Amino acid sequence: MADRITPRNVNYSDWYIDIVIQAKLADYSPVKGCMVIRPRGYALWERIQSVLDGMFKATGHQNAYFPLLIPESFLKKEAEHVEGFAPELAVVTYGGGEPLEEPLVIRPTSETIIWSMYKKWIQSYRDLPLLINQWANVLRWEKRTRLFLRTTEFLWQEGHTAHATAEEAQEETLRMLEVYRTFAEEYLALPVLTGRKSESEKFAGAVATYAIEAMMQDRKALQAGTSHNLGQNFAKAFDVTFQDKNGNLSYVYATSWGVSTRLIGALIMAHSDDKGLVLPPKIAPTQVVVIPIYKTANKGEILDYSSRLVQILKEEFTVEYDPDDSSSPGYKFAEWELLGVPVRVEVGPKDKEKNQVVLVRRDTGEKSFVPLNEVKQRIRELLVAIQKDLYQRALAFRTSHTRQIEDYTEFKTFFEEDGGFAESPWCGSANCEAHIKEDTKATIRVLPFGNEERAKGACVVCGAPAKNLAIFAKSY
Amino acid sequence: MADRITPRNVNYSDWYIDIVIQAKLADYSPVKGCMVIRPRGYALWERIQSVLDGMFKATGHQNAYFPLLIPESFLKKEAEHVEGFAPELAVVTYGGGEPLEEPLVIRPTSETIIWSMYKKWIQSYRDLPLLINQWANVLRWEKRTRLFLRTTEFLWQEGHTAHATAEEAQEETLRMLEVYRTFAEEYLALPVLTGRKSESEKFAGAVATYAIEAMMQDRKALQAGTSHNLGQNFAKAFDVTFQDKNGNLSYVYATSWGVSTRLIGALIMAHSDDKGLVLPPKIAPTQVVVIPIYKTANKGEILDYSSRLVQILKEEFTVEYDPDDSSSPGYKFAEWELLGVPVRVEVGPKDKEKNQVVLVRRDTGEKSFVPLNEVKQRIRELLVAIQKDLYQRALAFRTSHTRQIEDYTEFKTFFEEDGGFAESPWCGSANCEAHIKEDTKATIRVLPFGNEERAKGACVVCGAPAKNLAIFAKSY
Repeated sequence: MADRITPRNVNYSDWYIDIVIQAKLADYSPVKGCMVIRPRGYALWERIQSVLDGMFKATGHQNAYFPLLIPESFLKKEAEHVEGFAPELAVVTYGGGEPLEEPLVIRPTSETIIWSMYKKWIQSYRDLPLLINQWANVLRWEKRTRLFLRTTEFLWQEGHTAHATAEEAQEETLRMLEVYRTFAEEYLALPVLTGRKSESEKFAGAVATYAIEAMMQDRKALQAGTSHNLGQNFAKAFDVTFQDKNGNLSYVYATSWGVSTRLIGALIMAHSDDKGLVLPPKIAPTQVVVIPIYKTANKGEILDYSSRLVQILKEEFTVEYDPDDSSSPGYKFAEWELLGVPVRVEVGPKDKEKNQVVLVRRDTGEKSFVPLNEVKQRIRELLVAIQKDLYQRALAFRTSHTRQIEDYTEFKTFFEEDGGFAESPWCGSANCEAHIKEDTKATIRVLPFGNEERAKGACVVCGAPAKNLAIFAKSY
Repeated sequence: MADRITPRNVNYSDWYIDIVIQAKLADYSPVKGCMVIRPRGYALWERIQSVLDGMFKATGHQNAYFPLLIPESFLKKEAEHVEGFAPELAVVTYGGGEPLEEPLVIRPTSETIIWSMYKKWIQSYRDLPLLINQWANVLRWEKRTRLFLRTTEFLWQEGHTAHATAEEAQEETLRMLEVYRTFAEEYLALPVLTGRKSESEKFAGAVATYAIEAMMQDRKALQAGTSHNLGQNFAKAFDVTFQDKNGNLSYVYATSWGVSTRLIGALIMAHSDDKGLVLPPKIAPTQVVVIPIYKTANKGEILDYSSRLVQILKEEFTVEYDPDDSSSPGYKFAEWELLGVPVRVEVGPKDKEKNQVVLVRRDTGEKSFVPLNEVKQRIRELLVAIQKDLYQRALAFRTSHTRQIEDYTEFKTFFEEDGGFAESPWCGSANCEAHIKEDTKATIRVLPFGNEERAKGACVVCGAPAKNLAIFAKSY
């Protein structure tokens, strides 16, 4: 019911958690920081997996599976990598009742174990490129967690590719970033900014990290996917070389890229409202819910009419049917709004009489009366319209909360007040970046492609000549 | 190449491992007992997942995801359960750089964590049945491992259902056993025996365990899937009660059931030969491989002809194409036989001239010349025939190595010599079961449905009146 959900303007965090819990997407588990993904949440993950997996295969990738446990010593082989992940590790010290000779860590990410295998599999240029993806659980010991957005264990995919040249690795890095952008925009209806991360925000062990960043309804940024050019860092750490066509040995170039169950958090935060979940039709596990409205006297004929309708709709859409007589139509409407089904079909005695149905859009609440013989066509159109409108609404929201700021006082005021994305000139120094973070909690989310050419004037902090035009925001 | 594979009659174990490694299905990992599932192996798992997942959903189940880590104390709540699993646990004692207050075990199976959640979710009969499945990795510390068949970490699905009555739980247990039987026989072409496990072989914490058991080519049994009726054991351990229609509180009834990546081992061992992998068409990731045969002079026209053929075949089948000119046709034939693609299509200059192709069955090596305009139809028929013949061949093999034995001397000789499945009368005592295991290494694989009625005469060991007709075999 809608009144179980804290309104956004009362407490945005509570609103988010209320939706996750009340729409039965996830639940807290007895293990601190780990979540249970309930069937309605997991169905979203299955949709995400299914679409992305198709996109990965269409770009030549194959799935594989690497071990959960990694010898602790492997992480230490890449200096930046271990520094980045050491504080977040869960460590297995006993196995089969005995203390282990070498502790094993639960993967926080799989570069090290995968590159130890690539050493066995890669000898010649003929073995390249090697384009592998894995769907898996990973674990990062987090101090502060929030369902879907940051949990100790989460589900994700991690692509790990090996290439003969730096150019190919860079192409792959950007290709997969583009896959993520396309998926976020076309399926999740989530407009994203793309670009490079600053040095201080990049992946531990990468040469360069690229990301897709979305704006949530509280105007904070959410990093929704990353693609890393790892250069030869892991090839050197694990001594992975290949013989080129001329017989010369070189280190292999690497990329890795991933998105996680965090995308479900992004979906919820981007589109939902005070009534509950709002889902883009292309990713909604159920597109249509049919609710018959009847009294005892006409129950039989209405259920007859509505269940025939359900059969017809199932030919084309994913449909749920709620003929239950233990709750009122009003209660059911609220319940299915909470669950985020994009289109509600109501069927009452008058509708039956007129050979029509009532269609209600979840996103706008707009009602329309539709003759029975047009219902499929109209739902088809509605689903397209909702998908498009959700994207446009999110885009308009981001646009209206993005400001070009060159003055530091204005910059600070912006983040003290409503906040959003600030597009500001930056000198490129980690000092100024740290300064901004301390003053405002905002960080550089991305350095958009081509930002160097657009960087004019003075750094918003120190006044030195700007090298970059950076997007600053508070973030999840 | 075929000569990289040890023949079965030289060393069956080596033959199996050679196929797994040479067909690039899996590889050893740096972590003892854990395997890497390579793309060709993982593609088999994806096919298995896809078919089974559809069958689970068609029987009303939904997927969810529960945490990897389980508080150690949870396992102790069910006495038999902890006794069964304690020796196999991997234990996390550090997280985020600090020792944990309570050690966490990596799930060896998820009954305990799931029933701790079911306590939150189940209050009323309206919440039942609760039909949930999870696709996940699990970990059991194994002393002796073998790729796919027994590994420390493996992938599986585990169904966990909750019911209002003992009858419903029993129905569910048998329904899922039947799903497994259907899947094994119709997709994996693997004839299986079904039945109950003896007390000494049942799941730790179950009231009754049912299994599907298949015979491998070395005449050993392989347990390919289990379905457990857990009674109220876990509901009592986690205090999960529900209010029935009359307002009375009762403990909930439970089932759990699972199959794992072990099925890939079963597939390999059941059908493959000394040339390599043999796969049933319904589960083969690639059904057809097209190999053009050409010389430098006619390369262009042959590749033209064969690549057009590939396009046509792709409309209906999963196809790989091997036009590479760095190895000979003979080498390629052996290579694709090793990889187990069910149908090979050869296209040479004579074939082009006659507007035909050559089809070769992987299972029998049988060749046929087929006019181009019939090729789809013939491949369609071949795939059906191969699927059926593999099943029939495995069934005939099992039948010919199953013997009814009532005399203990004959029983022991049977297992000293070729072995197989012995169908023998048993008094039902754990003593006689242990006696047999000590003498012959054979165990009771299943007590087939209705075996009590068929049990006549005297126990094969002690001569007491038989209660059961049991299937004995050595096993994996």
